[in-house]
Formats: sequence, C-alpha cells, structure tokens
Amino acid sequence: MSDAIRGLQLRSLIKTSGELEISLLEVPTPEPGPDEVVVRVEATPINPSDLGLLTGAADLSTVQVSGTRDHPVITAKVPEAGMRAMAGRLDESMPVGNEGAGVVIKTGSSEAAQALLGRTVAMIGGAMYQQYRCLKVSECLALPAGATATDGASCFVNPLTALGMTETMRREGHTALVHTAAASNLGQMLNRICLKDGIALVNIVRSAEQAEILRKLGAKHIVDSTSTNFMDELTAALVETGATIAFDAIGGGRLAGQILTGMEAAINKSGKYPYSRYGSNVHKQVYIYGGLDTRPVEIVKSFGLAWSIGGWLLFPFLMKIGPADGQRLRQRVVDELKTTFASHYTKVVSLAEALDPANIAVYAKRATGEKFLINPNKG
Amino acid sequence: MSDAIRGLQLRSLIKTSGELEISLLEVPTPEPGPDEVVVRVEATPINPSDLGLLTGAADLSTVQVSGTRDHPVITAKVPEAGMRAMAGRLDESMPVGNEGAGVVIKTGSSEAAQALLGRTVAMIGGAMYQQYRCLKVSECLALPAGATATDGASCFVNPLTALGMTETMRREGHTALVHTAAASNLGQMLNRICLKDGIALVNIVRSAEQAEILRKLGAKHIVDSTSTNFMDELTAALVETGATIAFDAIGGGRLAGQILTGMEAAINKSGKYPYSRYGSNVHKQVYIYGGLDTRPVEIVKSFGLAWSIGGWLLFPFLMKIGPADGQRLRQRVVDELKTTFASHYTKVVSLAEALDPANIAVYAKRATGEKFLINPNKG
Repeated sequence: MSDAIRGLQLRSLIKTSGELEISLLEVPTPEPGPDEVVVRVEATPINPSDLGLLTGAADLSTVQVSGTRDHPVITAKVPEAGMRAMAGRLDESMPVGNEGAGVVIKTGSSEAAQALLGRTVAMIGGAMYQQYRCLKVSECLALPAGATATDGASCFVNPLTALGMTETMRREGHTALVHTAAASNLGQMLNRICLKDGIALVNIVRSAEQAEILRKLGAKHIVDSTSTNFMDELTAALVETGATIAFDAIGGGRLAGQILTGMEAAINKSGKYPYSRYGSNVHKQVYIYGGLDTRPVEIVKSFGLAWSIGGWLLFPFLMKIGPADGQRLRQRVVDELKTTFASHYTKVVSLAEALDPANIAVYAKRATGEKFLINPNKG
Repeated sequence: MSDAIRGLQLRSLIKTSGELEISLLEVPTPEPGPDEVVVRVEATPINPSDLGLLTGAADLSTVQVSGTRDHPVITAKVPEAGMRAMAGRLDESMPVGNEGAGVVIKTGSSEAAQALLGRTVAMIGGAMYQQYRCLKVSECLALPAGATATDGASCFVNPLTALGMTETMRREGHTALVHTAAASNLGQMLNRICLKDGIALVNIVRSAEQAEILRKLGAKHIVDSTSTNFMDELTAALVETGATIAFDAIGGGRLAGQILTGMEAAINKSGKYPYSRYGSNVHKQVYIYGGLDTRPVEIVKSFGLAWSIGGWLLFPFLMKIGPADGQRLRQRVVDELKTTFASHYTKVVSLAEALDPANIAVYAKRATGEKFLINPNKG
C-alpha cells in the first residue's frame, strides 16, 4: 500500500448544528480488486442532481470561504426548515459527483479490467469529484476511438434520463410527450431523440431566448410559459400532438397542474368523449424529475380524476426495465455520443475552483445553458 | 303509451350565460324493455359525488328561488373561473343521482325482470332523483328480506368505494392505509371493514368531535389534523402501521403532501434504508377521490422522488378489476348491509324540499355527519 496513489476528493458535510461544509481532502486511492480499475478523472459535470447532495438545503446567500487557495473550505447555513430533509445525512462527510469520464491508469487482474488500461471511459457510481476513482468494470463504459473525456463526461445521467422519458411514454401507453425547462442540455437531447424517432414533443420554455434556442434546433412545438396566452398555446400544442404524459424539471408552482388542465382541455376539444362531471377517462400523467422551482407544487384541479403527478428518477427506472433494456439504451448513447447525446459546458473548473463562491453563485442557479464541468486533474 | 306512468324528475342545467338552474320536470316513464324494470324510487342519497353534477361550479351564496311550492326553480351564478370545467355540459339539462333504492312496480318480459316484481332493489346508473326509474335488471341488486329502501339506498357508491380502497391497497402492494375525512359515512364504513379484515388504518379527522366518533367505533389510529402536534402524531401512526398508501377526500390544501412527508419520515425512522439524497425507494401513494376542500392542492416536496398523487374514481376501478371481482364485492355489501355497510342520514326530504335553499345550504357544505336522503315519493 506504500505506493498508493493519493488524490484530492471533494466532500460535503451537513452538521447537526445546521452548517454545510464543503472541503477537499487528500485521500489514498484503493488498490483495484480483480474486476476493478483506477481512473484518472478528467471531466465530471455539475448536474442539478449533484447539487442536491453538494449543497443540500443550505442557504447559499450565507456562503463563507476559509482554508487555503488549494484547500478552500466553504461553509453556509442550512435553514431550520430545510434540516428535516437532511436528517438522513447529518454529520456524515459525503463524496459527490454522479458521473464522469477519464483515463484508466491501473487495473485489477481480470481480463475485462486489463482490457481497459489506457482507455478513456465514462463512469457512473458517485464520488466522481475526485482526482482518482477506483470502480468496477461494470460501472465503466469504454468510449469509442476519438472520443475525449469531455465528450463522455455526461454519458449516463442526461442521455439515459432523456431516453428513459420516451421509453416510459411508450411503456405507459402514450404516443407523444411534454417536457419543461425544454431548452436545457437534457431538453435539447430529448428534442434530438424525438426528431430522430418521429415522436411529437411539446417543449415548454420560460423565455423567448429559450424558445429561439429550440427553434434553431428544429423543434416543432414550442410554448413559452411566460406568454400571456400560455394556456391557449399549450392547449393548441396538446391538441396537435395528443400528448398525455409530461416530464417536468420545474417541480414547483402551478405548471404541473396547468399541463394537466391543458391536456384535459385538449381531450375535450377532440370531441371523442361524452361529458362526465368526473372529467374524461383518459389518463393524464405528469412526472416530476427535477426541482428547478423550489416553491410548493400548486395544483388547481380542473381536469377530472384520471390523472397522476408523481416523482420520476432514473435509477429506479433502470432497475424496473432490467439489464437487457438498460444495455440497449447505453449502446445507443455510445453510438450517438457526438450527435444526439452531445453536451455543452459553459466553463471547465478545477476542484478548488468549484469551491470558489463566484462559481458556486453561477452553477447553483441551475440556469438553463449554464452547465459547469469539473476537471479534477486540471493543472 | 297512454297509460305511461308520469313522475317528477330533478334536472340540473348550466347555461352558457353562466347560470345554474335546478328544476323539477314532470316526465313520462319509459315502458320497460324485456330486461328492464320500473322502480318507484323511495330513497336516494345526496353524496358528494352527486353534488358535483347537481350544483356544478355554481356560487351557492347567490342562490335564488322562483317557481311554485311544488315546482320550485333554483338559480345561482357560476363564477367565470368555474365555467371552463363546465364546458362539456353547457345548455344540457341533466338528470342527477347516482344511486338509490325502491320497489319494482312494473317489469319487462324476461324471467329475470319478472322475478323482481314487488321486490325492494338497490340501483345504480344515474338519474335517481325522480319518482320512477326505468333501468336494466343488471343495474339492480335485490335486497334481502327485511331490508328497506332506506337500508339499500347507499349500496353502491360508499360501500364499493370503501372496499375499492382496501382492494387497491392489496393490489398495489401496500399493507396498511390512511384515510382522510375519516369520520364520514364512508370513513366509518372503511373503519368497520378494516377492523373486520385486520387491516391497520390511520384515520385522519379535522376535529376532536370527529376523533371521538371514531374512538367510540373502536378505531385504533386516529390523528386530528387540527392538533398542534399533527405531523408528529401522524408520523407515529405511520411508523406503527407501516401505511404507504392514502385515500384523500379533502383534495385541497397541504394535507396530501403532509401525508407523503409523514410516510417518508416513518420509512426513515424504520432504519431499514441507507441515506439517499433522492429519498427512500419506497413508493408512497396518495389517491385523491374527493374535493371537500376546493382550494388548490399544495405539495411541499420533502419526501424524495418515489411518490405519486393521483385521482381515484370508483367506476374506472370497477372496470379495471372486471365483473367477477366486482360481483364478489357487491355480494359482500348485500351480506353485510345492516352491519359493515349501514349508512346514517340526517334528514329525509322530498324532491321539492331538496330544492329548498335552507336545505341546500346544509347539504352543499358536505359536512361530516350531515348526509341527506331524498325520498322522491315522500307524501
């Protein structure tokens, strides 16, 4: 163990006292087991799903920085109201980072592990915000020749989430879908999938600029929730597409309920169903998979009783469809890595730079079009 | 057709002008077809589910009465905000009344129809708020000897809804359940079913008086949502019972979300699951089947992503389980009509009295313990 590789690892800790602490530790890298490899992490994105663990329920207007330039320590207060949801992680220093990519620099004894030596791989499995990650071969995906770590950094979460949406649509008997925050990296991916697969997609955005981004990408149905005619425009798009399932990244305010109201209005406009005071029998589904709007979800019910709003999360979805279908989705991601599933980043930062309050202030906003990439081995 | 029986029928009409009109028409009773019977309706309840059709979205503070003592006409304004949901029924005069009971006075030629002559039957199928109802034998349920029309008036909606809840609980893999507005007629029924079947039931009520009603009926878990310790008491009951599915008649405000929050807290307290910032993997379900609170549903999300809130309605449920299982549930209702499925009524009114503004003001409140029964043939 004397030649153990040591590297920096980002840790997030929420203390019982109500304080968030983010710091960088120097940790030894475990020796790879037979079916494991050690990867030098070169690219790992800050996804909204990472921010939940990274900053938790902390009030980021209270951020303080201490420590040194190379080993900064960020602290912030967690409001009392947010502490209930933090109960399960109190006083536990947690590594962060769902996915990433890098180069295999050491392998275990198995043939599968050795085959990866020197290869650039995409990785899933958490704790990616560190310089060296030891993980199982099954958690790696070898990238095709010519693909860089940056190309492969976001191979799992966004691509499989977007594919999971069209899969869920089909499996639950719908034929078209609605997506909110639709100009996001994920939304652009979903738009490319739907164009390619011939699926009608209603893109809901929150500004004229976002509408323009999607229009340039060839999106056919774009509705701006800030428009004064939003409900009419949404209903018209729902009539045209027949969408009865939505995936909502906003997860707060009235939007989810408005989508259900629009779907019911579109169903009634179709003239296919007799009046029932309970509303139509057509099941209308909204899945909330994000929380860009942290306000409560407010549902003004005016869409009968054939409806459901629920949480949707990638990993339970993958468990539900099983390994064979999961592999089919992964293969498609690799096959279309630089086209359908290409990601774009605003800024590449080192681990220490990721703890710079000026950067935190930008990426923690989760603004559409602002996506950071960490390169833990950035010189 | 000259000897057609004529009788009064209640009609509800919402005009494009935004006015509700409830009136009594004298209508001829159709001749029964071979598989039909004519029933003299003697008891038909005003369920919350009937009120939706009876008064629609009208503002009942604007009720006006005109017409004569025997043929009163009620009018009220429908606020503009409510008119969208009324679109499907505009300018269509609609009969009302989901279920009822009475005596078969005329039959069609089939053996099954003739066998019912003189029998007291329970009925389902709408348009029960009238003196004579012609309907199919399959929409009737012959009551056992000794059972009156009043005993059988509420044979379908409440009993099958209550049984539908425990059936849904089992079919969706839960082992205990939560019910709101739990001291209602339906709630008392559900409590009796659960006591009899050994199912743990968390009864949520809205006052100490309602808690007392259930306590006297032997309910084991009663939580009062007006208690200052409501969330702690709810969570404790959820820990004890392990309930992960709820049926909510309130359908407005924060209660549905609070139930999910309590379930997640109970799951975390069980200590069976590791921390995940996405919350536990245990699916938590709230079905909204009523709208006693007409405010929007407000969901403060603090229970991860394994959750769903959706509408639940008896008739789609019965279609889903199919005729054989439906028949099994109906048979249980008949077998336990005077025990498990007994209903209690505050007041028995004639059709004209049902249109008395003083009565409307009481039954339209949908208050727990205030249930009206119409006897269209009351002298």
